[in-house]
Formats: sequence, C-alpha cells, structure tokens
Amino acid sequence: MTTAKAYAAPSATEPLEPTTIERRAVGENDVLIDIAYSGICHSDIHTVRGEWGKVPYPLAPGHEIVGTVAEVGSGVTKHKVGDRVGVGCMVNSCRECDNCKAGSEQYCTNGNVMTYGGKDRDGSITQGGYATNVVVDADFVLSVPESIPYEKAAPLLCAGVTTYSPLAHWQAGPGKKVAVVGMGGLGHMAVKIAVAMGAEVTVLSQTLSKQEDGLRFGAKHYYATSDEATFTELRNTFDLIINTVSANLDIDQYLNLLTLDGTMVYVGAPAQPIPVTAFTLFNNRRSFAGSTIGSIRETQEMLDFCAEHDIAPEVELIEATQINEAYERVLKSDVRYRFVIDATTF
Amino acid sequence: MTTAKAYAAPSATEPLEPTTIERRAVGENDVLIDIAYSGICHSDIHTVRGEWGKVPYPLAPGHEIVGTVAEVGSGVTKHKVGDRVGVGCMVNSCRECDNCKAGSEQYCTNGNVMTYGGKDRDGSITQGGYATNVVVDADFVLSVPESIPYEKAAPLLCAGVTTYSPLAHWQAGPGKKVAVVGMGGLGHMAVKIAVAMGAEVTVLSQTLSKQEDGLRFGAKHYYATSDEATFTELRNTFDLIINTVSANLDIDQYLNLLTLDGTMVYVGAPAQPIPVTAFTLFNNRRSFAGSTIGSIRETQEMLDFCAEHDIAPEVELIEATQINEAYERVLKSDVRYRFVIDATTF
Repeated sequence: MTTAKAYAAPSATEPLEPTTIERRAVGENDVLIDIAYSGICHSDIHTVRGEWGKVPYPLAPGHEIVGTVAEVGSGVTKHKVGDRVGVGCMVNSCRECDNCKAGSEQYCTNGNVMTYGGKDRDGSITQGGYATNVVVDADFVLSVPESIPYEKAAPLLCAGVTTYSPLAHWQAGPGKKVAVVGMGGLGHMAVKIAVAMGAEVTVLSQTLSKQEDGLRFGAKHYYATSDEATFTELRNTFDLIINTVSANLDIDQYLNLLTLDGTMVYVGAPAQPIPVTAFTLFNNRRSFAGSTIGSIRETQEMLDFCAEHDIAPEVELIEATQINEAYERVLKSDVRYRFVIDATTF
Repeated sequence: MTTAKAYAAPSATEPLEPTTIERRAVGENDVLIDIAYSGICHSDIHTVRGEWGKVPYPLAPGHEIVGTVAEVGSGVTKHKVGDRVGVGCMVNSCRECDNCKAGSEQYCTNGNVMTYGGKDRDGSITQGGYATNVVVDADFVLSVPESIPYEKAAPLLCAGVTTYSPLAHWQAGPGKKVAVVGMGGLGHMAVKIAVAMGAEVTVLSQTLSKQEDGLRFGAKHYYATSDEATFTELRNTFDLIINTVSANLDIDQYLNLLTLDGTMVYVGAPAQPIPVTAFTLFNNRRSFAGSTIGSIRETQEMLDFCAEHDIAPEVELIEATQINEAYERVLKSDVRYRFVIDATTF
C-alpha cells in the first residue's frame, strides 16, 4: 500500500478538503505514478456533487493526470521508472466484451472502471488524481511526449481526447466545416484539434467575449449564439457540430445548422432529456450523436497528434488550496481555459 | 389542360369526396400519365387533416402512383407513350442548390415540390394521385419494371423508397443486425428490403399478431414491444434500427438496443418533440437520425432492386368509394399492409 496526500469531497454538499488516501500495492501489471499535475474538469464538479448519480464519499476526483513513473510491476513492459505518463478518465475495463475486444474500451459493455468513484476489478473504489500519486494498470497508462509542456499535458487526458475522438471518428479534415459549440475547457481544445486536422472551424459561443482567443486558436469564424441572426445565417452549413455545452440548449436550432448528412455530436451532458423534432432530423438527413472520452489507442494517438502539431490547452495553474474557489469559477465559465493543480501543493 | 376524375378532401375535417381536377397542359419536359393504381400512405391522412401544417383545399392526396404514359412533351427522351411508370412523393425541385446538384433532391434546400399540396415551379398547387391522370416533369417520373405486379408497384414509390434509402445509406447488408420498429406499410417493406440486402432482421412490433407474416417476409426474429423483457434481452444488439412508427415512443428504450456505433433512423414522424437522454447516446457512441423518402436515383435503384429480388408489398385493393373507410382502418393499423386504389373506379 502507498499513501497519497489528496483533496477529497466528504459529501455532495461540502467543499473539498485535504486528506490522505491509500493506493493499492503495485501489482504485476501496475504502474505507480508520482503525480505532477492534475486538471480540473467540469465533470469533476457534477460528479462529486452527486448531480450525475450517487457516488461514494469521501471522493477525490481528478481524471486529467500527468506524472512520472515511480515503480512498475514485474509484468510491465510498456512503461519504465522515470517515464512521463498520463492517466485519463478510465483505469480499467472488462477486456472481454465485444467493445473492449474491438479496442473501444471506453464503451465497455460491462462498464469500464472510471478513474474515481468507480469499482475496480478487485472490488476497491477508485480515487482520482487530486493527489500526490496513483496506482494504475499499465494498459490504461499513456505515454506523454516530452515536447508537450508538463502542466499543459494534463487536460489532454480528458478535454483533449473527448474532443479528438469524435473529430477523428466523424472525419473532421480538409473540406469539412466544423462548428464547436462552447469555448470552455473542451471547446477550446476542439477548436485547436479540428484546425490542426485541417477543417474550417467556426465557434458558436454565447457571446463574443472570447472571440480573439478563438481566432488565435485557428477558428475561421466566431458567432454569438445570443444573436438570433446567427441561426439564420448559418442554416445548413456544417458537416459536423461538436457540442461541448452541458446546459440545455434549443437543440433543433443547432441541428438546423447541419448540412446534408451532417452530424451534431454531444460531448457535454445535459442532465435533462433533450427534445428533438423528427422533422429537423428529416431535413438534410441529419444525425444527432453522443461520444464519450476516447479509447486508450485514441488517447495515445491524440497525445502524439498534439505533440506533432504543437497543440496544448491554455491552462491556469493553481495550488490545492484554490480548488474550491476554482470550482466556483468553472461554474461561472471564468477560466481560460482549464485549471491545473500543481500536485506539489497537496 | 387535361381534366382528371379524382377524390379530394374539401377541408381538414371532412371526408374525401369525388371531384374533378385540372392538370396542366403537357409541357416540353412533361409526361402525362394515365394512372392505374394509387397507394394510400399514412401521411396522406396526416396531411389532408392538417396535422402536419396548413394545406390548401380542396386537396387530392396520393403519392404512390403507377400508370401508363399517355403523352410526352417534345423534350422527353427518358419515357415514351405506353411505358409503365411511377411517381412518388415529389414532382420537382429547385435543381440549383448543392443538394439537388448532388442528386439528393429529396433534401432540396429550397424545398422540393411535393406531389400534392405543394407549390410547383410555375406557381400552381399540385394535386396528387387519387385521380385518373397526372402531368409530371419527366425527371421525376420513374420506370417501373414489368416484372413487378402493377398494383403492387404503387406503394414502392413511397413506402418502398422511404425504407430502401436509409437501409442503403446506413449499409444494411450481410453481417449487419437490423431492427424494424412497426409492421405497417413502411415496416413490412423495410423487412423485405433489409432481408434482400442480406441483413439479419428483427421486427419490433407492439404485439405478436403479425409475427407469422414477419417471419414469412424473412425476418429472423420477432419481438413484442409491449413485453418489457424485449428491451432487456435486446440491449446493445442492433447496428441499425429503422423506426417506422409515428406515435410517440420512449425513444431511450429503443436507442439502448443499439450496439457500438449503431444508428436509429426515424422515417415515421411524431408531431411532438422526442425527448432523448444524452447519456443514452454516449453509450456505444449511438446516433439518432432522420431520413425522408429518397432521391430519384435511389427510387429507380429501389424499383430495379425489388424487381431483381422479386420483392413487392402486400396490398389490399380497394375502390375509390372505400377511401374514407380505408383511412379509418389505416389509423387502427387494420391493413395488411397497404391499401391501393384501383384508378378505374374514380
């Protein structure tokens, strides 16, 4: 067993507080990682506050983890002590279902093991990356290219792959018009990645307050969704819309922006059912889809892609004591564009 | 001008009644068709009753038309007098938008001209196929292979292509598991076509009352959706679900039946918005799509496919005087599986 200093929520309604957690002994296929940086994802807040269902407490969130390998099990060949590595939203899966066998373990039919609040295959409850170290099965540990700045690598493990995966799956690239709804942690990564893939990118944000950033990230167009004219002007335009917003939107309005055979993909998750009009889907044979994180193969592919294209998220580095304040700022969209916790401050 | 005997609705609330309508003079690119048979589509009822929006009255519905060419304009080379031809749901389109240019005139951005209740390019209001003849632009007239029984060809022009198009687009075929929701006019054609394409077909019907038919049409499995166990047993099963039902369903329940990257396609149109849960789409990266009729190219392809595979709808032949009674029976799903009007009885 290894002890880690951590920040955890004691309940759904209390702020996170310093604590210690126990990590399992390093097994044959495990990697012990000394965590360097840990990103704060909007979903951490939803989860610890019980908004997406019941979770065990105390719960240390965090699924955007980078660090250095401190120890490996005897069976591990993929990583060695001193390697710069990352861990994302999942740390295990059943490995037996069709989806796992197809290399899509993010869609494990038996439920993959989430990095925190999940039940691992040994029955233990997982604790996340707001901590000084973590023990993870080597198959779920990614190699982080040296050229990606250390603290900026963390958000790639969730925000990066969550946007990369649908952009790759629905083939964003030259000749494709891609819209990104929302310019937050996920949105700004979606812009950078889609631009690097060669797509023509448009940002649809509530206001124009981040327009300068959006254009600097490579977007060609930037529209305010608070302006009704946006929806008239852009009707039948996009091949792909990546919707990163978890607030309830008038989804028909956005679907109407899709051109023939266009797809809108949700990566943000509104808690309420989304009303869709069949006739909106009939026009242009539109599709409305969901996508969640990405496979381990895709996550590695994304890290290598970001290194190759010199892409990294914009981050604001904080200390552990600032986590609760950071949560409030995330909820107010007051972050450009991702908080990352310096793990030396736990 | 040509006069046609027809059946038309005088208003949204009155039964259809015998009348005469004027067809335009045969223009350079027009075809005058002596109608032999005309199918009754569920959407005829929705439309004449004003349930899908305001329509002009009196209105003769009917967009499943087969007949014989009686006259052609001087510019027509595709069809000649005596040819067996068909007309489906649209009789014109703008021919200038990207979708028309791409051969997807069913998704004409400027709105294609529906066979009845539409405004044609010359400004006239179209009247449908519950009539003795019709004048249609040759580009929207299909060739009906001789091997398809005459009266059975009619429903192919809507029910046939409306199911063929999504089955072809989403590549139903060997190795694919396809579910068809609803065993009505569209559903029974979806089963026959998907089976002929080589897919493994499952019918999801309210009850098992049409099970024998479904299996005879080639479905491998038949389940009652009134039985909750159906949704547990079939979870994560289908690559493609063709939903032909226009009643409101618990759509999440059906989406959960999709396997990795599966798509549910609506071809029936509920008037109310359909509530979809984002998490249901996240699982298995599911898509929820719409599809409407098919292009002229696809319609011809479908007619040739049906001839080649010896597929035809099951029809119940009626006389014009039985139309209003037939409407009531359609609403009660009391038809196996499509009413076709003998046009000699108008």
